[in-house]
Amino acid sequence: MKETLNIIKVGGGVVENQMSLDSLLNQFVSMQGRKVLVHGGGRLATSMAASLGIESQMIGGRRITDEKMLEVVTMVYGGLVNKNIVAGLQAKGVKAIGLTGADGDIIRSHKRPLKRVKMDDGTEQMIDFGFVGDVDKVDAKLLSELIEGGSVPVIAPLTHDGEGHILNTNADTIASSVACALAEYYDVTLTFCFEKAGVLRDADDENSVIPSINEELFKKLIDEGIVSGGMIPKLENAFDALHRGVRQVVITQADNIDGSRGTTIKER
Amino acid sequence: MKETLNIIKVGGGVVENQMSLDSLLNQFVSMQGRKVLVHGGGRLATSMAASLGIESQMIGGRRITDEKMLEVVTMVYGGLVNKNIVAGLQAKGVKAIGLTGADGDIIRSHKRPLKRVKMDDGTEQMIDFGFVGDVDKVDAKLLSELIEGGSVPVIAPLTHDGEGHILNTNADTIASSVACALAEYYDVTLTFCFEKAGVLRDADDENSVIPSINEELFKKLIDEGIVSGGMIPKLENAFDALHRGVRQVVITQADNIDGSRGTTIKER
Repeated sequence: MKETLNIIKVGGGVVENQMSLDSLLNQFVSMQGRKVLVHGGGRLATSMAASLGIESQMIGGRRITDEKMLEVVTMVYGGLVNKNIVAGLQAKGVKAIGLTGADGDIIRSHKRPLKRVKMDDGTEQMIDFGFVGDVDKVDAKLLSELIEGGSVPVIAPLTHDGEGHILNTNADTIASSVACALAEYYDVTLTFCFEKAGVLRDADDENSVIPSINEELFKKLIDEGIVSGGMIPKLENAFDALHRGVRQVVITQADNIDGSRGTTIKER
Repeated sequence: MKETLNIIKVGGGVVENQMSLDSLLNQFVSMQGRKVLVHGGGRLATSMAASLGIESQMIGGRRITDEKMLEVVTMVYGGLVNKNIVAGLQAKGVKAIGLTGADGDIIRSHKRPLKRVKMDDGTEQMIDFGFVGDVDKVDAKLLSELIEGGSVPVIAPLTHDGEGHILNTNADTIASSVACALAEYYDVTLTFCFEKAGVLRDADDENSVIPSINEELFKKLIDEGIVSGGMIPKLENAFDALHRGVRQVVITQADNIDGSRGTTIKER
């Protein structure tokens, strides 16, 4: 039987605030067993870019990464956010090791080609997202060796193309890709920290968390209009991860990563 | 017999310029055997700080690191410089893995206490260098495991205090500390890249490199006034590393790290 592995993804909203980050780290530390942390940092990147007089351009919720912005995200994700989390975990006795996809060649990607994107006004446009990477492969072997050596990988949302370029890569995608690759070695639970308590029946009621969603219920929730907007691709990605070997995906709040609340997504 | 290990330290002047960095990386790639790269990045940190409206304050050649400057060096050293070097080495087929002292707890330090410093005007003052770390210990075991696994550590000049704080640490000191710790496992050559071809008999003549210096010659060179100023502590540090088990220290230019020219420092 495979050992269990918890992969936790936290977004920029959690890591930008020292108090919420501390609370997340405390919970993460108290989780037993093998674990991996994947972090974002978009909000900090946006504010650092602004301090440098660089404007952040977002299309469809995704950042346009020109050369200047690539420097900013490399600094903020790979340096500031990653190293502060690593130092924070070390202080709590966790043997954290910070990694980008370039380190040890753990996540190889290619620069995203022009992509057709639906704009806010309903038209479609071909968008060049710039130095953004779509993941090609994850070296699960090296990651598992680090994990078996007692280390806890802390992964920044940066990859590389194998030709010397760092590429900005969505942290949710990193988390899913790493989870799928590590599913060969472990019984993986992938937890996405989210601003709400889970997938809600009623968007205005935090007590209306749907505890469990399988594919059948997912279709029904879409038909009923309960699940809509950005939650649909999030859940589609979750099911995709399940099809690729991840045992379960949990969507919950950062202060609840032990999974006692939140929404658990399973195939059946 | 121990395996040989080359530790190369390159400063900010080399890493800030893409051409000189490329040339250094090409040479580093062509070096056979086990190796470690330690980099600085001070000049880039200074210019990034300036872009953010933060003034760099230097005393006795050392940076004063206040909270804002710590953010800058964490971003620039741990993110921008480290990840670009790692991606560059990966592109050349080297399994580079970027590390700060916090990652895997490889270099633990403590915040430097107030220090008596000789000022330019000849007076002495007690200086608070801020978030600057003096090295306490290096985890040579983890580093050697990475090296034996085929990885090439690329180390940024940042350490941590084990209490959650990243500390800015001189890259020469990092290189020496890592070299001394790894001397337990390897036959270590430590190479400092320098703006001149080596230690020169005549500061204005790049062809006057002194090929080899032992402790006896060192004393003589000081007496004769050939070695003076900042070169004295540099050589003292080199001898200190030799006393602590490093086989030889080489001082040379970044375009000559194979050691065919430059000054080799040996105990006898």
